[in-house]
Amino acid sequence: MQRYFVTEDQLSPTTAIITGEDVKHISRVMRMNSGDLIICSDGAGRTVKCQIEQIAENQVTARIIEELKPNTELPVKVTIAQGLPKGDKLEFIVQKGTELGAVAFQPFSASRSVVKWEPKKVEKKVERLEKIAKEAAEQAYREQIPAVLPVKSAAGLAAFAAQFDMVIIAYEEEAKANEQQRFAQCLQALTPGQSILIMIGPEGGLTEAEVSQFVEAGAVPCGFGPRILRTETAALYALAAISYHFELMR
Amino acid sequence: MQRYFVTEDQLSPTTAIITGEDVKHISRVMRMNSGDLIICSDGAGRTVKCQIEQIAENQVTARIIEELKPNTELPVKVTIAQGLPKGDKLEFIVQKGTELGAVAFQPFSASRSVVKWEPKKVEKKVERLEKIAKEAAEQAYREQIPAVLPVKSAAGLAAFAAQFDMVIIAYEEEAKANEQQRFAQCLQALTPGQSILIMIGPEGGLTEAEVSQFVEAGAVPCGFGPRILRTETAALYALAAISYHFELMR
Repeated sequence: MQRYFVTEDQLSPTTAIITGEDVKHISRVMRMNSGDLIICSDGAGRTVKCQIEQIAENQVTARIIEELKPNTELPVKVTIAQGLPKGDKLEFIVQKGTELGAVAFQPFSASRSVVKWEPKKVEKKVERLEKIAKEAAEQAYREQIPAVLPVKSAAGLAAFAAQFDMVIIAYEEEAKANEQQRFAQCLQALTPGQSILIMIGPEGGLTEAEVSQFVEAGAVPCGFGPRILRTETAALYALAAISYHFELMR
Repeated sequence: MQRYFVTEDQLSPTTAIITGEDVKHISRVMRMNSGDLIICSDGAGRTVKCQIEQIAENQVTARIIEELKPNTELPVKVTIAQGLPKGDKLEFIVQKGTELGAVAFQPFSASRSVVKWEPKKVEKKVERLEKIAKEAAEQAYREQIPAVLPVKSAAGLAAFAAQFDMVIIAYEEEAKANEQQRFAQCLQALTPGQSILIMIGPEGGLTEAEVSQFVEAGAVPCGFGPRILRTETAALYALAAISYHFELMR
């Protein structure tokens, strides 16, 4: 059943109102009619099954017929801090990371980031990433849309780390050195409801100075297995491992 | 250090001979000279550090200076059976699946596969996927290049399953039904050295008839967490979870 995110005030006790681009998606892409069923989520914990009553030019009205408890959010809140990568890799990371359950993406400008975000393009880039996150969240049956946060410096990221219960650095030197247990130990120390920040360098990796700065801020360097992963694969590894640990190994 | 795969007979007790496209990569892309260090692997368990002695037009000769034991292969042998997906998704799955440790990819033509491989294009397609696997294996520090097997029918895949110690079906109906422990139970039953086949449907999923056919052949339907993953994400989830289980949780 097709899923759409709406704002909290678009979900009354009895009725869901869908506006914006989703109206076109319902009427033209999915070619739905009144009587068809959809799922709406307010991104804040409420998910409902609805029956479409009316499709107008700019608004779809649907009657709520069931309150759902999909329970599709990861038990721990994972934020991916990604050193700005080349090309469209960040779009890839946001799409796949959303499918795999991340609650937020924090891009940061690392020393070895080749890409710089021009200030006048930031808003457009974030908008595009937010759209990708929304569509991936709908497709994956998520209950919330992950946040795409404004880009930070490495120093800004080190300060941001203080908000989290656990901070991990994906560090390939650890992978090369055969360090393979620390990530599992960190996950074992986390409990459901807690938050974790995963820091991942850009293509060239993090510099030693960046790693030191993050370690001083409380981050733990971890290897993600003995193979060297591309930057865009590291986030997916971390999220899949966290899902396996907290959702499958019960 | 840059890594190259050679054939077994290109690796003598004392010397490595590099031929083919890697010669251009060494001389023109990496701009290496005699005296520079590289790593060569024969894809059959022997990996050596070498010093380049001579760069000729079609051949690089290097002196072996150290036998290495990188130990970067997954403890269990994972083959990904992928229902033919749309567009360039199979290339993506082979690249990322190689990074994450798969030993083979078995494409299969599922009922809901929109894409069909025209017989006269199969050879070219497999060649291209093999090239992607080789480059990803070099980049990831793998000790072997995963095999890309000729496409099979669903019936052919069911027969192929008999060769494996464990066969898993990624089945989103199980994910929707909140079945979340079976995959972990299956991994707990596997021991290092054993083989596992992961069957993944195309975009539209597997049909019930296909699932029945695979279950009759001994496959176990498993959910990969409660979110619905795109077809190209399922293989990565499985491989990351297997790495986490066998390499990190020791």
